[in-house]
Amino acid sequence: MTSKKLMNSVTGCADDALAGLVACNPNLQLLQGHRVALRSDLDSLKGQVALLSGGGSGHEPAHAGFIGKGMLTGVIAGAVFTSPAVGSILAAIRAVAQAGTAGTLLIVKNYTGDRLNFGLAREQARAEGLPVEMVVIGDDSAFTVLKKAGRRGLCGTVLIHKVAGALAEAGVGLEEITRRVSEVANVMGTLGVSLSSCSVPGSKPTFELSTGEVELGLGIHGEAGVRRIKMATADEVVKLMLDHMTNPSNASHVPVQSGSSVVLVVNNLGGLSFLELGIVADAAVRTLEARGVKIARALVGTFMSALEMAGVSLTLLLADEPLLKLIDAETSASGWTNTAKVSVTGRTRSRAAPAEPPEIPDSTAARGSTSKRMVPVLERVCSTLLGLEEHLNALDRAAGDGDCGTTHSRAATAIQGWLKAGPPPTSPAQLLSRLSVLLLEKMGGSSGALYGLFLTAAAQPLRTKTDLPAWSAAMDAGLEAMQRYGKAAPGDRTMLDSLWAAGQELQAWKSPGADLLQVLTKAVKSAEAAAEATKHMEAGAGRASYISSARLDQPDPGAVAAAAILRAILEVLQS
Amino acid sequence: MTSKKLMNSVTGCADDALAGLVACNPNLQLLQGHRVALRSDLDSLKGQVALLSGGGSGHEPAHAGFIGKGMLTGVIAGAVFTSPAVGSILAAIRAVAQAGTAGTLLIVKNYTGDRLNFGLAREQARAEGLPVEMVVIGDDSAFTVLKKAGRRGLCGTVLIHKVAGALAEAGVGLEEITRRVSEVANVMGTLGVSLSSCSVPGSKPTFELSTGEVELGLGIHGEAGVRRIKMATADEVVKLMLDHMTNPSNASHVPVQSGSSVVLVVNNLGGLSFLELGIVADAAVRTLEARGVKIARALVGTFMSALEMAGVSLTLLLADEPLLKLIDAETSASGWTNTAKVSVTGRTRSRAAPAEPPEIPDSTAARGSTSKRMVPVLERVCSTLLGLEEHLNALDRAAGDGDCGTTHSRAATAIQGWLKAGPPPTSPAQLLSRLSVLLLEKMGGSSGALYGLFLTAAAQPLRTKTDLPAWSAAMDAGLEAMQRYGKAAPGDRTMLDSLWAAGQELQAWKSPGADLLQVLTKAVKSAEAAAEATKHMEAGAGRASYISSARLDQPDPGAVAAAAILRAILEVLQS
Repeated sequence: MTSKKLMNSVTGCADDALAGLVACNPNLQLLQGHRVALRSDLDSLKGQVALLSGGGSGHEPAHAGFIGKGMLTGVIAGAVFTSPAVGSILAAIRAVAQAGTAGTLLIVKNYTGDRLNFGLAREQARAEGLPVEMVVIGDDSAFTVLKKAGRRGLCGTVLIHKVAGALAEAGVGLEEITRRVSEVANVMGTLGVSLSSCSVPGSKPTFELSTGEVELGLGIHGEAGVRRIKMATADEVVKLMLDHMTNPSNASHVPVQSGSSVVLVVNNLGGLSFLELGIVADAAVRTLEARGVKIARALVGTFMSALEMAGVSLTLLLADEPLLKLIDAETSASGWTNTAKVSVTGRTRSRAAPAEPPEIPDSTAARGSTSKRMVPVLERVCSTLLGLEEHLNALDRAAGDGDCGTTHSRAATAIQGWLKAGPPPTSPAQLLSRLSVLLLEKMGGSSGALYGLFLTAAAQPLRTKTDLPAWSAAMDAGLEAMQRYGKAAPGDRTMLDSLWAAGQELQAWKSPGADLLQVLTKAVKSAEAAAEATKHMEAGAGRASYISSARLDQPDPGAVAAAAILRAILEVLQS
Repeated sequence: MTSKKLMNSVTGCADDALAGLVACNPNLQLLQGHRVALRSDLDSLKGQVALLSGGGSGHEPAHAGFIGKGMLTGVIAGAVFTSPAVGSILAAIRAVAQAGTAGTLLIVKNYTGDRLNFGLAREQARAEGLPVEMVVIGDDSAFTVLKKAGRRGLCGTVLIHKVAGALAEAGVGLEEITRRVSEVANVMGTLGVSLSSCSVPGSKPTFELSTGEVELGLGIHGEAGVRRIKMATADEVVKLMLDHMTNPSNASHVPVQSGSSVVLVVNNLGGLSFLELGIVADAAVRTLEARGVKIARALVGTFMSALEMAGVSLTLLLADEPLLKLIDAETSASGWTNTAKVSVTGRTRSRAAPAEPPEIPDSTAARGSTSKRMVPVLERVCSTLLGLEEHLNALDRAAGDGDCGTTHSRAATAIQGWLKAGPPPTSPAQLLSRLSVLLLEKMGGSSGALYGLFLTAAAQPLRTKTDLPAWSAAMDAGLEAMQRYGKAAPGDRTMLDSLWAAGQELQAWKSPGADLLQVLTKAVKSAEAAAEATKHMEAGAGRASYISSARLDQPDPGAVAAAAILRAILEVLQS
């Protein structure tokens, strides 16, 4: 069974992928007849050194993503994990030469096929009289004992693209660029780790890992790594990686030690979540800084992938100030990431939490006017909700997850505890605000947030006045907030139905000489009727709206609870 | 069985991921006590509108990756796929207000939890007297019939970050920004497709897909989509997506039609390979342009992910020139991608292949000097290699993949065909160059590239002279190229061993009065001895070097072949 891939054909996938990147990036053009992408502004680069790179496909955004001002002039792409054709490499060299560039540097990852094919194209180009140099990048720190083939070329190659690109953009000559990047390539190391393999289009995964295993020291062609380790925490895995890649007894180590200044690259090998990438970045920064290593710059992203491999590689590059200037230089390459031009280590990573603002005092008129009756009102609301717990849960089981009563009981218990802890604020506005915070925290869920919203908004009109018109306005404000953020409207079979019905009746409080209890009695009856009427409604919002097929023949528990709260308030005020 | 993740703990993963991004990006700071990241230069934004966004974690780089000059002022992150705490949202609002910004816009993806929590924080902040507006982004084009909850907020939200950020940076006021982005949000649509689910840390994957299925119309929280379709080609899947999201009978469609100008976002939902992302981008551009849609800008990358989901979403935003200016505006946000400020549609996507350079004529002295004997020499080399096919394959089976004889036979057959097609060039340099190209193309593999390299390099000294010293220099040049690019040295058990031994003897040709045949005879004998000696060598390069345990007691087939070629040449020259 081959792996599932979103593509048109196995044979065309490398062509299609490159065509897509070029189509979406007007800074790039394809070279006709070849799997080659070049800068669109190639003809304006006269006298500048041209930088060509490439290799097999499957490492995107490498390398086409690094074409642009300040990075590569062009790339030659092979089939997936396969070296590009010599003829295409030669065509790219000729194209940049014919555009008037001043010599070409080939930046090649150290793999036999790439060395031979880029090397042969170079020799052919030189035979044509074209000045072409070649650097072979081997930044792999996996192998503790080196074979003659040397270190493999991995994600560090992208840093070489950047350094060479900045030099070329600055007008530095071919020989000097070749010398400088060769030096830089020697103080660089990369190590990969993965939770999964990847699969070449049309093929099976290249190796299998069990759920408890992690592969250490991978290349970027789906080949197995140097060691298989047990699954561990991100901190442990990162420590192991950094130990391995900086250990002086490892022939391919990068000489990073306390006091070193480095560029760190945290590179997604393809299919790792960016959440995990951030976690690995965090572990890498902490571990390196704990060892006294100064992280001058850190890049986090997908730079050199191995198809969909769920892994990450760390690259360390020893970097002094002149080198950092090259890393910081401007580029238009789409695959390079915006990076701050300041040191990662040594700056303050957090700022103090903001001051709590002083409580805005209510106007004198609004203070203490209703405090005496507030405590018994709240007590009655609480006992009512506690008494309804089983009933509400039963109603909710028909349409939701059956916890509506539990949620309201939790709220009631919280309010009871709060009343026991001390007297509530004397101003209605402050009382509602405090209740809002309490319900949000203790009631939880959407109900807590909705009551929190209702109370916060309702508190505002009560800051200046607490007469009957102000209480009606408070109800209006609460309903408005609930509708705006909750997206429910009357008729949607939610708690809003009862409250909205009551709010309509409470408009009467705005008329001069309105009677508190008379109006409230009508409002409560209206709320209860509205709650009852929800049994005939289709759910238009809230959790029940996802139950399209369920026959809903019971009233909405949230609406029933809201009506019961209003009746509890009325009963205390009547007594 | 929960999924394998590189993290330290389920409970801490959202904190660790945000800490990692902040640690690596000096443009960001955490707000103490909250899962909030803010611009480090917050105190320099006095008088500018502050833009806050956020939501559950697991969508990285959204939203912290979009903090920076020209985009967001800060973000509030919840646990994975969970709305952030109201207290943290309020703390972020207070922090930006206390830094002196001129009002705050909350940019919220349309999910109930986010609406309620951001809404409540907004109401609390307004109660404190802070000017706070809120836009709720719903760009989902999946649902053909709309529920009251409205369209979900997806990748299009990132475009809103960009537009709002550019306006804020330009000094536009809170009300005007709110109005503008609300308009923009109305002409935007997003649709996702995935080959896999994802899994919340500590949990199982949220749904299962068989190898033949694709999920269409997904959200970004691992929930299943609106439709499950059969696996199809990228072109077919993209066509289906664009049909669905632009169909006027779809209540959530984006009104894109022939003549429309759009911004296209091709967004990796997390675990799709970037190869496939490019293929999808290619299909999207082709399909849209075939429908007469003008693609003004195209962004390809990971912007709004759903953990490691192997999927992609397409976003279309109707965009006029003033809107494109905002998309093009500078930003320092690490998650935004470098994008050319010119139209994708309508520009030339390829350039003509370079001209073949005119063949550099060899000096008069080097022309035609050895042509008469060249044809019989080549014929004898071919018949020799064809005769050795089985022997070479047998030798190769002990150490490689057993095809060394086949490869050399293929070369011989190709040369025979070439000789039949017409007379070879009369100059040795041109002859070797043509043979180089022929072997590279027809022999294939590393052997073809290595012989190609040898011959290309060897041809160069023969351009000006073809006397015996020149032929010795040609051998030197060939050997040098082979060693440089192939990384083998004498003693590594490769074909270089024979050639190098011969080359040492051929140094004698450089002495005045040296005898062609006498020296060549010694060289051939030396090559044959060297080939025989490889049976005692450990493989230091080439494929056999990976076989550490195999007992190699036969000579290297490549070395045997090279010695046989030299003897064939000698025999014809002697006759």
